[in-house]
Amino acid sequence: MHEFELIKRYFSPLSLNNKSSLNLNDDIFFDKSNKLAVSVDTYVEGIHFINFKKPDLVIKKILRSSISDLICKGICPKFYFISGSGDRKSFSKTNLKKISNSLREEQKKYSINIGGGDTVYSRKLSFTITSIGFSKKIIYRNKAKVGDDIYVTGNLGDSYIGLKVLKKNIRINKRLSNYFKKKYYYTELNIKFALRLLSLANTSIDVSDGLFTDLDKLINKQKLSYRLYLKDVPISHNLKKLIDLKLLKKIDCISKGDDYQILFTAKPTKSNIIKKIGKTLGVKISKIGKICSPSYPSEIIDEKKAKIIPKNKGYFHSF
Amino acid sequence: MHEFELIKRYFSPLSLNNKSSLNLNDDIFFDKSNKLAVSVDTYVEGIHFINFKKPDLVIKKILRSSISDLICKGICPKFYFISGSGDRKSFSKTNLKKISNSLREEQKKYSINIGGGDTVYSRKLSFTITSIGFSKKIIYRNKAKVGDDIYVTGNLGDSYIGLKVLKKNIRINKRLSNYFKKKYYYTELNIKFALRLLSLANTSIDVSDGLFTDLDKLINKQKLSYRLYLKDVPISHNLKKLIDLKLLKKIDCISKGDDYQILFTAKPTKSNIIKKIGKTLGVKISKIGKICSPSYPSEIIDEKKAKIIPKNKGYFHSF
Repeated sequence: MHEFELIKRYFSPLSLNNKSSLNLNDDIFFDKSNKLAVSVDTYVEGIHFINFKKPDLVIKKILRSSISDLICKGICPKFYFISGSGDRKSFSKTNLKKISNSLREEQKKYSINIGGGDTVYSRKLSFTITSIGFSKKIIYRNKAKVGDDIYVTGNLGDSYIGLKVLKKNIRINKRLSNYFKKKYYYTELNIKFALRLLSLANTSIDVSDGLFTDLDKLINKQKLSYRLYLKDVPISHNLKKLIDLKLLKKIDCISKGDDYQILFTAKPTKSNIIKKIGKTLGVKISKIGKICSPSYPSEIIDEKKAKIIPKNKGYFHSF
Repeated sequence: MHEFELIKRYFSPLSLNNKSSLNLNDDIFFDKSNKLAVSVDTYVEGIHFINFKKPDLVIKKILRSSISDLICKGICPKFYFISGSGDRKSFSKTNLKKISNSLREEQKKYSINIGGGDTVYSRKLSFTITSIGFSKKIIYRNKAKVGDDIYVTGNLGDSYIGLKVLKKNIRINKRLSNYFKKKYYYTELNIKFALRLLSLANTSIDVSDGLFTDLDKLINKQKLSYRLYLKDVPISHNLKKLIDLKLLKKIDCISKGDDYQILFTAKPTKSNIIKKIGKTLGVKISKIGKICSPSYPSEIIDEKKAKIIPKNKGYFHSF
C-alpha cells in the first residue's frame, strides 16, 4: 500500500478533532495556540542513507533532512531529539565520537540544540529525529492560487548523482565524483531565505521525494493544475555536463529527490521582491512554472517544447 | 558501554548551553519559557515488547509507556507522534486496522491526539513515540531532600510476571496467567493523581526499569542515601500468592520494571494530604522508605529485618 493511502485510511481519521495535526497531510505539525511546530522522521540504513561507513556525514545528512521540514515552512528549528537503534558496531566508541562531533558542528551551524533522545539495541540501524521550532505562523501546503508562479531554490539532481556515485552506478572522473558525493551528504539549507518567504509564498514544501512528487504533494487537496518548464528547472553546471554527454536525462535527475531545496508558489506581484531577496542572500531562485486552472491538465513542457503529461500523483508518464 | 555512560560521554556535553534538555539526565525535555515538555522513546520488538502477535495491545503498551514519562512529572500529555519501521507483515491491513483502533481508544481514554509520525519499511520492527505536553512547571529529578518519605503508587512486579507467562517461563493456572498478562499489556496511568503531585512531591520518576534502578536514577546527581523497607513495597494479592508458594522472590519481582507506577519523594508533613488524595482518587499509595543523609549507606531492609546493601547504581548485591 502506498504511504499516502496508509495514512489516509488508518491515521488521518484519528486526527479529525485536532487541527494542529494538519490532517496528517503535511510534513509537520503546527499548534498555533502554542506556536509550536514539530517534524518527526525515521531514517533506515539502506533506504534513507546508503550505509554507515561515514557516520559523521550520515548524521549531518539526516539531521538536515529533518530540520528542512521546518525550514521550508518558514520556521526556525530550535531543538532536535535523536533516537538511534543499532548494534555495537554502529555505536562503537569511534562512531559515537564522530556522531557527537557532527552534532556539535550542526548545532553551531544552525543554532539548534539537542533536547533529548534514546539509544536502543537493534540489529537494524535506524534513527528517528524529532525537530521542534516555535513560530507564530507558517507556510502551509495546499494554499496555491491560480496564476501563482512556481519557484525552486538552488539546484536539483546533484544529490541523486552523488548517490549513484556512492552506489557505483555511474562512472565519472574523481573531481566530479567528489563534487556529487559532497552534494549528497552536505545538504544546503537556507534558513534566512525561508524566514523571508513567510510573508511572500502562498505555499511551500521541500524537495525530498523529487520535484514532481513534491509538487503533487504541495497541491494534493486542491483542484488545480500546473505547467512546468523543464528548461527552467535549475541544475548545476556539473550536472549539465553529464546530461550533455547523454549519460543521464534531466527529467530523471530532478525526479529523484533528496535535494531539500524549497519549492514554493507566490503571486506574480511578488516576483521582483523574491528575486531581490535571493540576490541579497546569495540564494539562487528559479521560476519554473505556473499554477493553472483545473480545467487544463497539468503539463511539463520539455526542452523541445513537447508536452509531457504527468499521469498519477507522484509519477509521470511521457509520450 | 552502559547507556548512562554513553549519554554522559557523547551527548550531555552537547546540551551544556541548553537548560531545557535537563542535561539529558531526565526522561524528558522541559522548555520552561515555552511551557513545553517532550519525551522521546524507541521500542524494539524482542526488547521492549515481546512480539507483534497482538498489535492492538503492543500499541497500547508502548503509547502508555511514552506518556507515562510526562505523567509521572505532573504533566498532562496532549499530543503524540508515532513513527513505525516494519515490514509488510507487521503493517498488514489487518494489523494497521488494529493499530488505528487501539490508538483511537487510547486517544479517548487519555484525551490525547495524534500529531503526526512516519511509516518506513524495515526488516526489524520498531516504534519511536514522541509525546508532548504543556505545563508551567514539572516535577524534576534529583530534588529529593534528606528526611523525605519515599512513595510508590499501585503495585509493582505484576507486569514482570505477565512477561514470564508470555515467554512461558512460569507455569501458573489460567486465571492467574490472564491476570498477569493483562497487567503486562494494560499499564495503569494515574493522570489525576500525578497532576496533584505537582504541589506535593519534591521529585518523581516512573518505575520503568525496576524499583532500585529507578530510585538510583531519581537521585543520581545528589549526595544522598535511602532506606527502603521491602515489606512495604506494594504487590498485588496474586503476586503475593506466587511469592508465598516460593515460586519467586519479592525482591526479584520488583526489580524488573515495566510497572509505570510513580515513584516519588515528599516532605513528611505532606503525608496526610497525600494519603487523602490517594483515597479520594482511588489510587493506592505506599510509603516504602526514607531519603537519608549521605553519611549512611543506602540500604534495603528485607522482611526478616536483614540489611541488603545496593552495590552499584541500578544493581544490588545481597549477603
